[in-house]
Amino acid sequence: MIIMMNTPTTGQVNRVMDKLRQLGLDGHSITTADKTIITASGDLSACNPDLYERMPGVDKVVIVAKPYKLASREFQQHNTIVTVGTASFGGENIPVIAGPCAIESYKQLQQAAASAKEAGAAMLRGGAYKPRSSPYSFQGLEKDGLEIIRTVGQEVGLPVVSEVTDPRKVELIAEYVDMLQIGTRNMQNFVLLKEVALAKKPVLLKRGLAATIEEWLMAAEYIMSGGNDQIVLCERGIRTYETYTRNTLDLSAVPVIKHISHLPVIVDPSHGTGSWRWVSPMAKAAVAAGADGLLIEMHPCPEEALSDGPQSLTPGNFAQLMEELDKLTAALGRTVNKKKNK
Amino acid sequence: MIIMMNTPTTGQVNRVMDKLRQLGLDGHSITTADKTIITASGDLSACNPDLYERMPGVDKVVIVAKPYKLASREFQQHNTIVTVGTASFGGENIPVIAGPCAIESYKQLQQAAASAKEAGAAMLRGGAYKPRSSPYSFQGLEKDGLEIIRTVGQEVGLPVVSEVTDPRKVELIAEYVDMLQIGTRNMQNFVLLKEVALAKKPVLLKRGLAATIEEWLMAAEYIMSGGNDQIVLCERGIRTYETYTRNTLDLSAVPVIKHISHLPVIVDPSHGTGSWRWVSPMAKAAVAAGADGLLIEMHPCPEEALSDGPQSLTPGNFAQLMEELDKLTAALGRTVNKKKNK
Amino acid sequence: MIIMMNTPTTGQVNRVMDKLRQLGLDGHSITTADKTIITASGDLSACNPDLYERMPGVDKVVIVAKPYKLASREFQQHNTIVTVGTASFGGENIPVIAGPCAIESYKQLQQAAASAKEAGAAMLRGGAYKPRSSPYSFQGLEKDGLEIIRTVGQEVGLPVVSEVTDPRKVELIAEYVDMLQIGTRNMQNFVLLKEVALAKKPVLLKRGLAATIEEWLMAAEYIMSGGNDQIVLCERGIRTYETYTRNTLDLSAVPVIKHISHLPVIVDPSHGTGSWRWVSPMAKAAVAAGADGLLIEMHPCPEEALSDGPQSLTPGNFAQLMEELDKLTAALGRTVNKKKNK
Amino acid sequence: MIIMMNTPTTGQVNRVMDKLRQLGLDGHSITTADKTIITASGDLSACNPDLYERMPGVDKVVIVAKPYKLASREFQQHNTIVTVGTASFGGENIPVIAGPCAIESYKQLQQAAASAKEAGAAMLRGGAYKPRSSPYSFQGLEKDGLEIIRTVGQEVGLPVVSEVTDPRKVELIAEYVDMLQIGTRNMQNFVLLKEVALAKKPVLLKRGLAATIEEWLMAAEYIMSGGNDQIVLCERGIRTYETYTRNTLDLSAVPVIKHISHLPVIVDPSHGTGSWRWVSPMAKAAVAAGADGLLIEMHPCPEEALSDGPQSLTPGNFAQLMEELDKLTAALGRTVNKKKNK
Repeated sequence: MIIMMNTPTTGQVNRVMDKLRQLGLDGHSITTADKTIITASGDLSACNPDLYERMPGVDKVVIVAKPYKLASREFQQHNTIVTVGTASFGGENIPVIAGPCAIESYKQLQQAAASAKEAGAAMLRGGAYKPRSSPYSFQGLEKDGLEIIRTVGQEVGLPVVSEVTDPRKVELIAEYVDMLQIGTRNMQNFVLLKEVALAKKPVLLKRGLAATIEEWLMAAEYIMSGGNDQIVLCERGIRTYETYTRNTLDLSAVPVIKHISHLPVIVDPSHGTGSWRWVSPMAKAAVAAGADGLLIEMHPCPEEALSDGPQSLTPGNFAQLMEELDKLTAALGRTVNKKKNK
Repeated sequence: MIIMMNTPTTGQVNRVMDKLRQLGLDGHSITTADKTIITASGDLSACNPDLYERMPGVDKVVIVAKPYKLASREFQQHNTIVTVGTASFGGENIPVIAGPCAIESYKQLQQAAASAKEAGAAMLRGGAYKPRSSPYSFQGLEKDGLEIIRTVGQEVGLPVVSEVTDPRKVELIAEYVDMLQIGTRNMQNFVLLKEVALAKKPVLLKRGLAATIEEWLMAAEYIMSGGNDQIVLCERGIRTYETYTRNTLDLSAVPVIKHISHLPVIVDPSHGTGSWRWVSPMAKAAVAAGADGLLIEMHPCPEEALSDGPQSLTPGNFAQLMEELDKLTAALGRTVNKKKNK
Repeated sequence: MIIMMNTPTTGQVNRVMDKLRQLGLDGHSITTADKTIITASGDLSACNPDLYERMPGVDKVVIVAKPYKLASREFQQHNTIVTVGTASFGGENIPVIAGPCAIESYKQLQQAAASAKEAGAAMLRGGAYKPRSSPYSFQGLEKDGLEIIRTVGQEVGLPVVSEVTDPRKVELIAEYVDMLQIGTRNMQNFVLLKEVALAKKPVLLKRGLAATIEEWLMAAEYIMSGGNDQIVLCERGIRTYETYTRNTLDLSAVPVIKHISHLPVIVDPSHGTGSWRWVSPMAKAAVAAGADGLLIEMHPCPEEALSDGPQSLTPGNFAQLMEELDKLTAALGRTVNKKKNK
Repeated sequence: MIIMMNTPTTGQVNRVMDKLRQLGLDGHSITTADKTIITASGDLSACNPDLYERMPGVDKVVIVAKPYKLASREFQQHNTIVTVGTASFGGENIPVIAGPCAIESYKQLQQAAASAKEAGAAMLRGGAYKPRSSPYSFQGLEKDGLEIIRTVGQEVGLPVVSEVTDPRKVELIAEYVDMLQIGTRNMQNFVLLKEVALAKKPVLLKRGLAATIEEWLMAAEYIMSGGNDQIVLCERGIRTYETYTRNTLDLSAVPVIKHISHLPVIVDPSHGTGSWRWVSPMAKAAVAAGADGLLIEMHPCPEEALSDGPQSLTPGNFAQLMEELDKLTAALGRTVNKKKNK
């Protein structure tokens, strides 16, 4: 923490230094011309700029240490590998999670899963509890949906992930799925994050719609400091002024996260762009940027989908994307799961 | 809903018309030059653009009806008045809610409340359960905080409002406070909104950090469609590229909300700007723009505050602001609560 | 400038200190735990973070001094008063500039000007050279427009302002108008700013559509450092994700500018919101926030306007707004120009 | 254009229909329940929503036709190929433009150019006239810079591109360079666009810092409608709330542009991210997303650069990136220029 003071009196400087000392922090000051700059070091959690910004003589307080610790590359130099059944995130292989936005029926999910598996997907996704902007939209099959996804996952042989939205349902959902998803609207639902931290399941943590990279890592820190370090981050587009695409997929976040954190990061180009037309090019771009996985919406019949049809790939589109990713990852020295008979 | 088709075949147009009919919607089509435009009317909830955007020949689908109903001015022409004890939002009077960000102790809240009351505040605020970006920051006094705010509210004679973050705690908190606050991070926590809809208490619904006005009204619609129509909306700044202020206070939302909805709307210039320095001018601006109330952070000793000190007014600043608001509201034909002995 | 180094070697620290010395800057270093922090002071223009960010061992470089000087409140403590004919910006009085977006004919401008004058406007506006997003839109009457606005201004007795977009036309336009307007799209057209700096006319400098407050003041600094310090800043809405209003009017910029700069700042709620419906409430809010003037689009017949009709007030709307502003400014201890016969 | 009216009277509908007819547009109306919807078709430039939005009974006006014509894929189905000396944009090959932000000296540019050529760059860039946010920053070598870049380009055998900022300098600069660059701050400097339209040189049109894709294509339309259709679009990052990277590189714009326009689009990951660290991964991502070229800042000694040092690659970084792009483009069925001796 750096505290900048403009033409302070000696008394004002002493008062700041005293406060630092009270809180167990080391303070050092330099005075040059009319400015005094105080640097404070020590216990991170005691560095609260709020406590100094209102003190007389203080002009500005800058935090230089990162507010997250467990999620940082400094804390752990090597990559975390998150393993979900037969899929591993953070290594050379790039698992692709595929499936519909919402679970609509056994038949729908079974068709999606079979196509996904055939094309080389590593995991199956599908929502049973859907957070919808409108109270009048389809809210998901709830517990019936969980039964379906567990059954289908076992039948086709793919680990499954589904979203959790209610702290009271975490335990239940964790019984049915292999990985818990925190959706974009719940990234800062700290009550839910604390509950998920207690579950013994890996977590897929989507970036909030307007979250900074730092806030996103702080959300991971909530889960990690609560005892669960099996976290996969997922970039899914941020809100900007541009409306041509539903969101703006922030692919730069991929190399940034890889640099400052040891956690794996995957990309969801379906929500990130909002239209199937841009999903394939952006999936390839994500992989070229260094993503550790992909989350792709795929529906056996997108124009009948109860949710997010416009952004879903058909099974045919998906299979073609997997072929292209196969060549692309080879050129990058990585691999993507591919159909068995290859 | 308007469905635009570019050089469609007759079969493609018929397919769209059939689908509309299946879902009980009325469809009318016009063909001009190479474009066919189909307008559909009927039950709002059946108008799902997702179902048409992927159909062959369809270029674009535009929803023209508002997605919210109960919250709209069309549904109810007259202003909703929300009454919380002695305070009323939505009428000629402009209640000011004041108090610290977090309840820290009986003494702190009591001092804040006494100053607030003395200066003319209509309600007391204070957080017992705090959603904090960092797991290492002060998380609130929880149930002890609720005991304190109820006691202090009764002692000074002000109705109280406090934030609810956990669906499992709604019932408990509702026993202690007169109004439940949904914070900015929970505006789209639909699980929490549904729970709050069941509580028999007025709700203060803050706008999400990057929520559109429409999404904000849809959050109100969740609560209203669940059975609770005592909602006060609160503009508290949105996230933009400008970093000089912590958020960008979107005061235009005030006249917009008054025009399209019957719900009262108040403004929180403290979170909206992030610095005490801009609170008074923006509070006055909010009132001039037509706000139905204000939410002002005030702390007996901001530089000792455990949360949000930089944006809190001192009791002295607050009393002066109330004096200024008194003159301003008179010029606007409205009133602000003022000390009794006036 | 503060240079932060993470576990640097002595050689790395020396290299940074040497570079500072070479450029005539004073460097002081503190080492605490594993961090070294170097503070540099001296000539502002030599403080280029680019030169240090790539040096080995350097983690981050923070500029603490403001990049603008002449425009800062430190440089000049008292408010600058900009006088344009009978209007003065920056004092107790709040001049209102009114008129159509584009000059369409003598008759149109004459009617607008007469109504504006009658209602109490202090200046007349009207565009002769229009920057339009589309090459197919009306581009303005050009020199004929200048003739019209000069004539009409003299006839009704109002100083006039018009936009300049081409460095080759600055001299010409300056002959016809009392104040030169730099539009939002040209705020960082440095070639134009330098030309305007040479003109002996006051400048109305609109904020760029996505400009930070700092960039806006740097644009003023360009004009001031070029020799022209008669600048009135104009907030006109910034681009955000919210689309309900055309732009998001950033009224917080008003108290911020008043605090950090001595230049007057006015507000344009017409472009700021994009609809006549929000113009009056936001004009009042701007004044309550401390604005030094207003810029209001008004057209004798908005539905026939060749540009920006939807956001223009009718003469009747405008006259009513002026009545309301009269009461409001009285409550704030300021004044707005009012019809003479009052 | 679609005009929506809410419970209009017959007179109001007739008035709208009359106005359409006056302007030579075809109008058709449908009335369903309480809404009347009028569709208008005909000459694009006569479709001005401004003219209808204020008419009594009109609720909303939606433009459905694209405002650009010459730049659209409908106007020209096949890709435009822009040829600049030995480089071609828009075909199978992906030219890489490399060089420093600013031309500082013959030696600096010569070293950059030699390294660029050796590594396989197809063009050389370097700014002679620099638009800088601060009037106190280095503004470029101006005409001396032009002499240098022409000489160096001829010596190493690379076509050159440099930025034009002043309409009075277009002719001069066009004599020295093979391609004219319109920088991000000038994307809506329509005076400059019109001047560049008259030059007989290809144009590199950077996206404005907060421009929508539509506004960007409208800027291209200005140049095309002025007679110059040799335009290469360049995505270079947009302004968002995220500050970890200098801008947010909007790679989704690449597939979008390829879909709606026939013009080639390249990507500048240097300005797009602001740090050399993210340049290589984002360059690869750009190519995987379908970009038709790259613009990469490279400096022989970035820590001595007078401008944008932090985002410049060293010659070594650049050579490595070119090796990686060689493999990547092969997997995508495209090619990147490579050193001759390969």
